[in-house]
Amino acid sequence: MFVISFGFKIAKESEKCSARAGIVKTPHGNFRTPVFVPVATTATVRALSSEDLENLGAEAILSNTYHLHLRPGDKLIRKLGGLHKFMSWDKPIITDSGGFQAFSLGFGMEHGVGKIGSFFPRNMSAGKNRKFAFVDNFGVSFKSPIDGKKIRLTSEKSIGIQENLGADIILAFDECTSPLSDYNYTKLAMVRTHQWAEECLKHHKNKKQALFGIVQGGAYKELRQKSSKFIASLGFDGYAVGGSLGKSKKEMHNILGWVVPLLGNEKPRHLLGIGGVDDLFNCIERGIDMFDCVSPTRWARRGCVYISPEDGGNKENKFRMNIKRARFREDKKPISRNCGCYACRNLSRAYLRHLCTANELLYFRLASLHNLNFVLRLVDEMRDSIKEDKFLKLKKNWLG
Amino acid sequence: MFVISFGFKIAKESEKCSARAGIVKTPHGNFRTPVFVPVATTATVRALSSEDLENLGAEAILSNTYHLHLRPGDKLIRKLGGLHKFMSWDKPIITDSGGFQAFSLGFGMEHGVGKIGSFFPRNMSAGKNRKFAFVDNFGVSFKSPIDGKKIRLTSEKSIGIQENLGADIILAFDECTSPLSDYNYTKLAMVRTHQWAEECLKHHKNKKQALFGIVQGGAYKELRQKSSKFIASLGFDGYAVGGSLGKSKKEMHNILGWVVPLLGNEKPRHLLGIGGVDDLFNCIERGIDMFDCVSPTRWARRGCVYISPEDGGNKENKFRMNIKRARFREDKKPISRNCGCYACRNLSRAYLRHLCTANELLYFRLASLHNLNFVLRLVDEMRDSIKEDKFLKLKKNWLG
Repeated sequence: MFVISFGFKIAKESEKCSARAGIVKTPHGNFRTPVFVPVATTATVRALSSEDLENLGAEAILSNTYHLHLRPGDKLIRKLGGLHKFMSWDKPIITDSGGFQAFSLGFGMEHGVGKIGSFFPRNMSAGKNRKFAFVDNFGVSFKSPIDGKKIRLTSEKSIGIQENLGADIILAFDECTSPLSDYNYTKLAMVRTHQWAEECLKHHKNKKQALFGIVQGGAYKELRQKSSKFIASLGFDGYAVGGSLGKSKKEMHNILGWVVPLLGNEKPRHLLGIGGVDDLFNCIERGIDMFDCVSPTRWARRGCVYISPEDGGNKENKFRMNIKRARFREDKKPISRNCGCYACRNLSRAYLRHLCTANELLYFRLASLHNLNFVLRLVDEMRDSIKEDKFLKLKKNWLG
Repeated sequence: MFVISFGFKIAKESEKCSARAGIVKTPHGNFRTPVFVPVATTATVRALSSEDLENLGAEAILSNTYHLHLRPGDKLIRKLGGLHKFMSWDKPIITDSGGFQAFSLGFGMEHGVGKIGSFFPRNMSAGKNRKFAFVDNFGVSFKSPIDGKKIRLTSEKSIGIQENLGADIILAFDECTSPLSDYNYTKLAMVRTHQWAEECLKHHKNKKQALFGIVQGGAYKELRQKSSKFIASLGFDGYAVGGSLGKSKKEMHNILGWVVPLLGNEKPRHLLGIGGVDDLFNCIERGIDMFDCVSPTRWARRGCVYISPEDGGNKENKFRMNIKRARFREDKKPISRNCGCYACRNLSRAYLRHLCTANELLYFRLASLHNLNFVLRLVDEMRDSIKEDKFLKLKKNWLG
């Protein structure tokens, strides 16, 4: 079912692990894999313009169906010429299906967890929060956090919205489960997800848009294997691995070990919503081609800038440092000596610290540019290392 | 007392009014007059980088002594190589003296007024606010809004701070009065300002920095004339006209009519803190060469973008429109058809409205870029029109 203008070509497979380098072709041009895809939730990567993203060498972006449906509305975006034109971005766009928000505004909020169980978002306490999303066998009902209005998403509606937005790659509607959901619930959600996957294929009319299927099944081996086989049998253009991804990163790696081999080699594999430095290494090693994650820009806004091993970055500090710390007050050095971003070429840690402390708007842009440049260049390096069969060596240099 | 590397050359004087076009020379290069100088209060023009300002063709910026003294500290900035290096801006910088904050945090806050009496800042009610600045004959005592610490500014200290910051043009320490201050108080403040002006000249050691004197005297003709003559007699490198500027724009124009002829022709004249479209026309007509104002970026942050007469801008709407209005929801047009800024070249009013409504960080940068580009290009046009002796014609096209 290869759609018009979509394709995936593997340029090199690692001999020592499942890492691979390739090219994905879309109606808005190609992107190289492995790829890190910045997240433009509401038609903007926070604090950055499309021009900034181009200058950063971002090759694709991902936008959120649920958020754009809510505001400004997918019908409006269609009327204005589609998402590419709306935000003036003429490279590939991926849209998610809204299924993640069924989790993040549903059980994720109620359980106070993210996609990996050990991560507790701030200001949330497990089990004490109200839900804004309610799932049944036919779809998800949301209560809008903007005006309290009820919003209903189904497989048909999700595909319709994504058609209005006009992304190059769209995702099948799914239910993302919580790491704290039990076997029975996770199985129920998987069965729904399979049902919705078939429905999405039926509703998928615009053949200029590639459609990816999503594997669910939580951290349960039997369910993940079942889901992988089923999704792989339907003829999608590519695959995404959805959460929950278990209670630890170890469990996430196990999940990829079960899933990836069952998806076959021919189509790109996207791991949804994951993007830490260690994750990129560990998941590319396990055969993931595509990543999207808000973490570089979210950490930037929280005052944390990324640093490589030469600047003291390591697994323990998660390759980040908090620029607000007093020890950077008089620091004339750039954030990172080897970084080519505007801030590192021109400005000191002391200036960045000043902007961040003073809550100046410029800080958010500069730190977001730096963090995204850091991740994009790192993935470039990983891609090159795969081609030269030095990926595991590079990984060792970074993670030890 | 022309300092090293500083100079002012008039290229053209209008035959029909007091407008003139010239060039100011500083150690960090030249800027053309009339000039609009964006305000980088805390070493950043809000939401914009120095690279943005360069791309906008800004020829100089103005930073605030009081704010930088407070945070991150002028001694720190000196240690880090001065303000130019700190914010990576290698064109001319002007710093104010801190005297304006004696007003804005003092009587301005207490009276609930700005430099022109008819303007009432939001959320302020005249006479009901606490002051954070207290003036005596020897200087100003501030209570820091950051940590409540007491800060003392005197003429000597103001010059010392400005020396640490290392601007190309610095201002004499003065007391800016409130439009609601009476004759006696305004006279007292003027006498202090004159005393401080002489002290500043004495303390002015770094001859790479040009020093401008400030004319005070409120809206009282006798005081303004006295102040103009006195300040003009002291041998400053240039002059600034400080507030209060009366209870209406009419009064401000009267004040310029009294002051400008008494300052002589040879030195540049800066009108502090004023920058509306009508003000630029009216005050350039009356012989002002330099303007600084936060209004383009402040209005941008409030949702208001500048529009020229071709897009419906006029005296009544103050050449602004509120981009959040529902009528822009589906508007495919750029903010302004003739504007060359990034937003107008690439993005629709509908997209800007979406970003603004969603409170997205990108909105603040795009609107600030647009508004500053608008004002900078308008002043370019005014400068050209002076050279061609068509200034009053251009003014008529804009203001009717």
